[in-house]
Amino acid sequence: MSALRSQPLSEITTAMAAQEAAWNAGDIDGFMALYWNDDGLKFVTKNGITQGFDEVLQRYQKAYPEKSTMGKLHFEILESQVLSDEVVLLTGSWRLTGLKDEPRGYFTLIWKRIDGAWKITYDHTS
Amino acid sequence: MSALRSQPLSEITTAMAAQEAAWNAGDIDGFMALYWNDDGLKFVTKNGITQGFDEVLQRYQKAYPEKSTMGKLHFEILESQVLSDEVVLLTGSWRLTGLKDEPRGYFTLIWKRIDGAWKITYDHTS
Repeated sequence: MSALRSQPLSEITTAMAAQEAAWNAGDIDGFMALYWNDDGLKFVTKNGITQGFDEVLQRYQKAYPEKSTMGKLHFEILESQVLSDEVVLLTGSWRLTGLKDEPRGYFTLIWKRIDGAWKITYDHTS
Repeated sequence: MSALRSQPLSEITTAMAAQEAAWNAGDIDGFMALYWNDDGLKFVTKNGITQGFDEVLQRYQKAYPEKSTMGKLHFEILESQVLSDEVVLLTGSWRLTGLKDEPRGYFTLIWKRIDGAWKITYDHTS
């Protein structure tokens, strides 16, 4: 992997760690700060597609109304592919501990460099 | 959308229809013909990542041992994004009818143009 290509992955890995930390501080706004703040943001699950930053934020706010419901989030980055200079595909696993059930699954993220910053523009979480 | 960009989507839409038809004929090999025949193929679900064409094929063969278990597959393409001249992100819904339960969900596909043909290189289905 070239130095040019390793830089986005390093930035994205740092961003994912910040996102995990925000979640674990009960800070959903901080968690969402890595998502593209645009109507074009897409969040796909088994149940459908949520379109737009505000809608994704509301979905998280409803699902996790307070810190005690959020558990402790653990991300593991398993795979990355640089699709172009401005687009990275990232695959990983997630789990929430400290709750009654311990939900877990996998995510596929499309990161894009937008105005100089790497943002999640597409998230398929299952 | 430019003519240049509409062409891959037209080819991919045709390929998806062929894939659906192969499934509904009980032809798993035909269904798999649109996947990249390479160890780099990735298939992600809630339960994990299956890596490699042969492994994905075996997964389908085990899950659907005969035509009567396959039901009738319905794809709906909901969204496409041209990520580069050689890469297209496709989002859609799937459902199987004619079985006892009627499973359904969403898929995210990364299509790449490889040796002149569009192939699914990455599939996250939930």
